[in-house]
Amino acid sequence: MPRAMTSLLVVGGNAAGMSCALKAKRRAPDLDVTVIEAGPNISYSSCGLPQLVAGTVKDPEDLLVLSPEKALERGVAVRTKTAAVALNPYTKEVTVQGPKGRDALHYDKLCIATGASPLNPLKHGDLKGVFALRHIWDGVRLMEHVDSGKGKRLAIIGGGYVGLEMAEAFLKRGSEVHLMQKGPHLLPQFDPDITDGLDEFVAQKGVRVHLDCEATGFSEGRREGHVGVVHSNLDDIHVDSALVSVGVRPNTGFAAKAGLHALSTGHLLVDDNMRTNFHDLWAAGDCVAARHLITGRPTGMPLALPSNRMGRIAGDSIAASTERIPGPSQTFAGVVGTVAMRLFGLGLAQTGLNEAQARKEGFDVATSLVETKSKASYMPGVRDMAVKMVADRDTGKLLGAELAGPEDAALRINAAAVALQAGMTARKFAEVETMYAPAFGPVWDPLLVAASEIAKQVRK
Amino acid sequence: MPRAMTSLLVVGGNAAGMSCALKAKRRAPDLDVTVIEAGPNISYSSCGLPQLVAGTVKDPEDLLVLSPEKALERGVAVRTKTAAVALNPYTKEVTVQGPKGRDALHYDKLCIATGASPLNPLKHGDLKGVFALRHIWDGVRLMEHVDSGKGKRLAIIGGGYVGLEMAEAFLKRGSEVHLMQKGPHLLPQFDPDITDGLDEFVAQKGVRVHLDCEATGFSEGRREGHVGVVHSNLDDIHVDSALVSVGVRPNTGFAAKAGLHALSTGHLLVDDNMRTNFHDLWAAGDCVAARHLITGRPTGMPLALPSNRMGRIAGDSIAASTERIPGPSQTFAGVVGTVAMRLFGLGLAQTGLNEAQARKEGFDVATSLVETKSKASYMPGVRDMAVKMVADRDTGKLLGAELAGPEDAALRINAAAVALQAGMTARKFAEVETMYAPAFGPVWDPLLVAASEIAKQVRK
Repeated sequence: MPRAMTSLLVVGGNAAGMSCALKAKRRAPDLDVTVIEAGPNISYSSCGLPQLVAGTVKDPEDLLVLSPEKALERGVAVRTKTAAVALNPYTKEVTVQGPKGRDALHYDKLCIATGASPLNPLKHGDLKGVFALRHIWDGVRLMEHVDSGKGKRLAIIGGGYVGLEMAEAFLKRGSEVHLMQKGPHLLPQFDPDITDGLDEFVAQKGVRVHLDCEATGFSEGRREGHVGVVHSNLDDIHVDSALVSVGVRPNTGFAAKAGLHALSTGHLLVDDNMRTNFHDLWAAGDCVAARHLITGRPTGMPLALPSNRMGRIAGDSIAASTERIPGPSQTFAGVVGTVAMRLFGLGLAQTGLNEAQARKEGFDVATSLVETKSKASYMPGVRDMAVKMVADRDTGKLLGAELAGPEDAALRINAAAVALQAGMTARKFAEVETMYAPAFGPVWDPLLVAASEIAKQVRK
Repeated sequence: MPRAMTSLLVVGGNAAGMSCALKAKRRAPDLDVTVIEAGPNISYSSCGLPQLVAGTVKDPEDLLVLSPEKALERGVAVRTKTAAVALNPYTKEVTVQGPKGRDALHYDKLCIATGASPLNPLKHGDLKGVFALRHIWDGVRLMEHVDSGKGKRLAIIGGGYVGLEMAEAFLKRGSEVHLMQKGPHLLPQFDPDITDGLDEFVAQKGVRVHLDCEATGFSEGRREGHVGVVHSNLDDIHVDSALVSVGVRPNTGFAAKAGLHALSTGHLLVDDNMRTNFHDLWAAGDCVAARHLITGRPTGMPLALPSNRMGRIAGDSIAASTERIPGPSQTFAGVVGTVAMRLFGLGLAQTGLNEAQARKEGFDVATSLVETKSKASYMPGVRDMAVKMVADRDTGKLLGAELAGPEDAALRINAAAVALQAGMTARKFAEVETMYAPAFGPVWDPLLVAASEIAKQVRK
């Protein structure tokens, strides 16, 4: 009689979940792999939503990377519209709520990859016309709402990456956009040196920017049950719809009572194979607190590449744990938070810690700020560019970098990301032989100049 | 009586020479610094010549970074049109030929930064209408030649970086351009995987490409003393003018009998302070063989950034050698050959060794070739991109990378250049957290994918 197949249940069918499921199946083909996904789709590019709303991507289907049918061809069964509602890691059961009601699924191996959901902490945030973006179809619904004439005036609560990208997108779609940011700076993930003037720039493009404006709640407008007003510490803003983008929280509530180690934020703690404190239970993606490369501390980092990578590593480790396949399993090196965005023709990017974060972490910080040209000064189309670099005065090691410039400037951040992974000092980084051509920058790359400036301030 | 000032003579007033002179003067203000330069200008951007010829830069003056007057304001005296013709390092004298005839200049400290000159090995290469590019004014003369109707049909001998950039430039200026390349591939500095199809691409843009076509010499056309025909192993090509771009040699002939250690090519050997085998004699820039970071061997590398950097380090070391200023002097980490070019909307770049070079150096080579998209696949304007990576099978260390794609793809090479400086393995590089946004590339950066492919082939 053949040995019963080992079953792998993956909860969550986006980046981390599908990466885990497919990797595990590829490495251990005799695994019986099932993915359950709360939403209607798997593997979608939520980073592409602003492009959809802006109209540069026409068809929402284009943002779907993989269908359940394609997954099945690769040996992975998918059940959509099926959410996990409880977990018992001792009996190895997940209680799920699906189209046919409640059910209990047994597993031999489990991976939690439920991602994160937008926070909606505002009063009356459940009114019609108040949106949050997570799934593709959130974007489609919001778009339809606007196109049906109900989003002529739109408030976006939160001036971070998502809020700003969506502000540009809705402006392109023809809405009047009010961007409400509770602090004094847009993109508060950046040090203000880098985003200096960004609010005026965005305002010139047509976004009504409200700084130091903390939204507190919504009330109905003319139509019952629909949002009409956003209240704040400043003026009330009359709108037809609102998008709340003030951060995310991990979707780990269903497992809250299961005894999993987690941060108080709900992010699950894992080892470098993405294994939780239960032997047969892994977690990956936005619901996880991974080790931060610079601080060494577990940190939630809801980004596409780390999520995909954590998923693969979990899948690899799960496959290895079946003890039927040879070879060592990969480990996860950690996160640093490398992010880039395009905004009205600007490119902005960061990696590692910014100055404020580094100070908060207790580093004795050295910084440099370099303002330069994006090309040789005589080239047509030359633009301004700014780079900020942060290092540890004691060890000389780079802690992070931020930059802003023309669109393609964002591509430059990867050089700093490599340096962080290598644990390089500013002094060593300043010796890198970067490329030069008049079309691409000055002879002395701004990152090199920034590193040289820091090298003068550090002890090593 | 005050102590006599120490004199520094710098031979050559471009990137390395002026960097050396200005750095030395800045660190040791009581140095008496003189630069002699054979040409009429100092500090010009020869990399900007194609832009001038193409008409995107209108005024040749824009390519001049620094004038002798500005240099003097910073304490550095400059004598242009003054060439070194002999050197006696024992009596510390340089014989120079200037506007007022021959002269002998004494020095306490000397830096040789004479750069390199284009080779012109072809028969009757001295005919009128045969050009080579070194100085700004070579570009201006050639441009004027073309504009006066004498360059309607133009041959470019050599399909490397310079030849290709100039082919595009002259095409934009209205010439019929014949590009003659002696081997089967354009840009032979790249492995053919990366440049596959480049000849057809360039031909589609309008350049008449002649591959496997080795130019042997010129003969007169209808006008006496002027070029009319380029001979080759294939057909004769009838032209009005020709540009020879088949490589450069260091301008060290004047010092050939001085007893300086040098490669057989004439490149001067230096230590990591850019000091030659004479105590008071430094050398920097294209005339120098610097240590190659990967091979460890001295190598001529005529590139702008290393030249500027070597000049600064020489200046720093010279200042320190006066023993009147405190602090350690910088050292030169070495060259790797990071190069980028823009060609008809393509971006091409490389760093370190390509596969052919790595094999020639005796490495047990692992390679990967990744063909991918330049943005998320659903984004408008998405283009193809190719990355090749080379590593050492024994140590797992990266040896080099090459890439081709849309213009901004070239900026990606810096990530690999950082990795080479850090001595990173492919496995470690594959763990880097690169940035992702749909506008900038796929989630898995092509360089990461290339490194992962290599990680499967290496021993460490």
